[in-house]
Amino acid sequence: MINTLLLPELREMLASGDEQGLREFASAIHPARAAEFMEGLSPQEAWDVLQASDSAKQAEVFGFLPDSMKVEILETVNPAETSPLVADLPADDRVDLISDVHPDVVEEMLPLLPAAERRETLRLMEFPEGTAGSVMTTEVARLGENLTVHQALEEIARQSEDLETVYYNYIVDEDNRLRGLISARQLVTHFGKPDTRISELMQRDIVTVQATDDQETVAAKVASFDFIAIPVVDEQQHLLGIITHDDIIDVLREEATEDAHMAAAVDPLDDSYLETHWFTLAWKRGIWIGILFLAALLTALALQNYEAEFQKVSWLVLFIPLVISSGGNSGSQSATLVITAMTHGDVKLSDWWRVIRRELAMGLCLGSSLAAAGYICAVILLKGFAPEDASGQPIFEVPTFAEVLVIPITLVMVVICGTLCGGTLPMVFRRLGLDPALMSNPFVAGIIDIAGIVIYMNVAVIMLDSLS
Amino acid sequence: MINTLLLPELREMLASGDEQGLREFASAIHPARAAEFMEGLSPQEAWDVLQASDSAKQAEVFGFLPDSMKVEILETVNPAETSPLVADLPADDRVDLISDVHPDVVEEMLPLLPAAERRETLRLMEFPEGTAGSVMTTEVARLGENLTVHQALEEIARQSEDLETVYYNYIVDEDNRLRGLISARQLVTHFGKPDTRISELMQRDIVTVQATDDQETVAAKVASFDFIAIPVVDEQQHLLGIITHDDIIDVLREEATEDAHMAAAVDPLDDSYLETHWFTLAWKRGIWIGILFLAALLTALALQNYEAEFQKVSWLVLFIPLVISSGGNSGSQSATLVITAMTHGDVKLSDWWRVIRRELAMGLCLGSSLAAAGYICAVILLKGFAPEDASGQPIFEVPTFAEVLVIPITLVMVVICGTLCGGTLPMVFRRLGLDPALMSNPFVAGIIDIAGIVIYMNVAVIMLDSLS
Repeated sequence: MINTLLLPELREMLASGDEQGLREFASAIHPARAAEFMEGLSPQEAWDVLQASDSAKQAEVFGFLPDSMKVEILETVNPAETSPLVADLPADDRVDLISDVHPDVVEEMLPLLPAAERRETLRLMEFPEGTAGSVMTTEVARLGENLTVHQALEEIARQSEDLETVYYNYIVDEDNRLRGLISARQLVTHFGKPDTRISELMQRDIVTVQATDDQETVAAKVASFDFIAIPVVDEQQHLLGIITHDDIIDVLREEATEDAHMAAAVDPLDDSYLETHWFTLAWKRGIWIGILFLAALLTALALQNYEAEFQKVSWLVLFIPLVISSGGNSGSQSATLVITAMTHGDVKLSDWWRVIRRELAMGLCLGSSLAAAGYICAVILLKGFAPEDASGQPIFEVPTFAEVLVIPITLVMVVICGTLCGGTLPMVFRRLGLDPALMSNPFVAGIIDIAGIVIYMNVAVIMLDSLS
Repeated sequence: MINTLLLPELREMLASGDEQGLREFASAIHPARAAEFMEGLSPQEAWDVLQASDSAKQAEVFGFLPDSMKVEILETVNPAETSPLVADLPADDRVDLISDVHPDVVEEMLPLLPAAERRETLRLMEFPEGTAGSVMTTEVARLGENLTVHQALEEIARQSEDLETVYYNYIVDEDNRLRGLISARQLVTHFGKPDTRISELMQRDIVTVQATDDQETVAAKVASFDFIAIPVVDEQQHLLGIITHDDIIDVLREEATEDAHMAAAVDPLDDSYLETHWFTLAWKRGIWIGILFLAALLTALALQNYEAEFQKVSWLVLFIPLVISSGGNSGSQSATLVITAMTHGDVKLSDWWRVIRRELAMGLCLGSSLAAAGYICAVILLKGFAPEDASGQPIFEVPTFAEVLVIPITLVMVVICGTLCGGTLPMVFRRLGLDPALMSNPFVAGIIDIAGIVIYMNVAVIMLDSLS
């Protein structure tokens, strides 16, 4: 392993114009590792390092640099110098990059690209972010049906420099309609029988996606079929491009992060936490915090209706946070379990009755356990540690054992309310055609906060009235 | 696309013993799709369908069946019949499956496997769940350094039936020490120069993982290098096996779900939501709900100290839920943002000062906005809609504009407390060598609940005392 080279040495090679050393640096180690070493350099320095290598290597190393650095390089260095590199990038990466660069630079850059790359870039840029079209690449091997294994290998070898992958190769008719798939594995396996026709070997039942499909759906398909790549077609089955395993992994990571952010009521970020502009972050957090705040105001409104109760039975105040957090926590659990299960296809809308039964039973079980613990703790707290005023008198009337039953009864009801709301609301959202992840934990918790207060006060009023 | 075949037709073929039809079913469509059609069958029926195909196809289709169905088949059908199929499975899948099957069946099954597969299975079973060793497969092409491109292709073609992938092939010395990597892409590209030695082409700077590495680390490595597979080695660089892209995708999905569950305070499930036994689920939820409940009890204890305040200034009660949920929500946002950024390597421990500055500024900004909104709403609520008793007298003394300032001052402080705790606690956990995801949203919220009450009451006591 050759990763003992350090940033200072790289800088020294740059300063002394040691082109030979720089070329060796880029060719000896994996491009991803070379890119990692270069992260500490300025955009101009990084560009000088890249310049020392041949163009294929340049594009590879450049591809692994952090997005922000790529953008900086393109915005710093003269587009006339960088355009050959941009032209060498895989089409999907090129489009991703261009969408982040300042429009003025893009305007200067586009006319400098070769006509084919320019047309392709403009075409791919039309697909909206988050669709299959926006993550596909067009650089895929297209083979005619009549080739033999030997001819196909020759053809792929010839095209290989322009291909994103040689592992899945597609057979198309004269109209570019998808007819079949032959993997490099099948070709290599039949290496000893070079005259076999690929039409005899090719798979005809091909799983495809449409360019307008959601990237999350595409990733789920690739994951369940264990593909290295999946072809993207239009409605007439014309082959538009492919999405490769590395893009799928990026999509999965991106979607997992988005879901985590939504579950915490943050509008998903486009960049990483530290790279996101502070104002953008404030907006993406503030908008949801604001909505949740309005929901929480309703709890104040609800409590106001019971003000008289609190004045009469002031120990009820002590358990407000306990009651609402118990409901909120059990609701978040249920919501998250159902949302993740729906994302993986383990829970379908038709399972609604099973979910309700499970969550009802779960609410009953968890609620009863908390109720038992809550009763004991409330008795100890209220009867054993009742606060006293200066004269030694308790500052509130110490409740009887029967009166403290308000707490456990409320807990059972609130936890059941939590599990049922948490379990069903994401399914309701899915049914309405909305993203179930919108029914995020803070929202479930917010709804249950209000319900919890109403339940608590009604239980208290009914219980205490009937006991007095 | 040939997926018009339906479950009833499959059942009919079974009933009429139409072996020809069943064989066609399995060979015409993609194994993953065949497996999907079979999900409605009983274990014995599914086994009968499999039996109609040749053994390679059987193993492929079987591999795509849902885990629960695989286990049922092995536990229903005689091990003497199923053992050849189990032997044909990729080593990593075989081990996964066996760990789910009843130990009695495993004991019967193991002696029926060929000696090589049995030894391999027992060896792989030793790696603990969640390590690189537990997801790797041993079926990898090992080539000698002296082969030419032509010889390498021949060798791979010969071995290919036993290989999980032919796309990455490893060059080892006589001691099985890893020397280099040659991809099928390189071999195919040099198809026209069959006499090139692979030692001239192979990559020598290879990124590897140790068998004991955490599978999450492995997935992050593969994702950042865009690999199709990564080799697993021991400390002496002996090649133990490889982990392929499809396993990495599974790991990423598994880890994303685990993180989501932990963020909602559910102990991660081993199976899907509906497949997890009810008692297991109750335990995995109950244990955390119980811990959170104990934390929430502290809020009751804290409130008890301020009981006298509430009796004097009873409108303070109305805003308890609002204050604690504002802190909790902003804390959850910060915690989630920092946890996901740490998972992706975007935030390192050394960034602590940047995180604190960001979160402090964010808390100030969000807190002030909520404070402004909160002040207006509180004034309207307390002065405009103060509840009255039967005689038309307000049931609490309506506060002055200055007194209502308790609410906005508290909100700013609580939200800052939330963003700071949420942003730093996950880093503290990482520093202590714990999983930052343990500092899940409900825990951050629980801590901030208590802090929120203490802040609220102290602000109230100081403000109201100084005003009276």
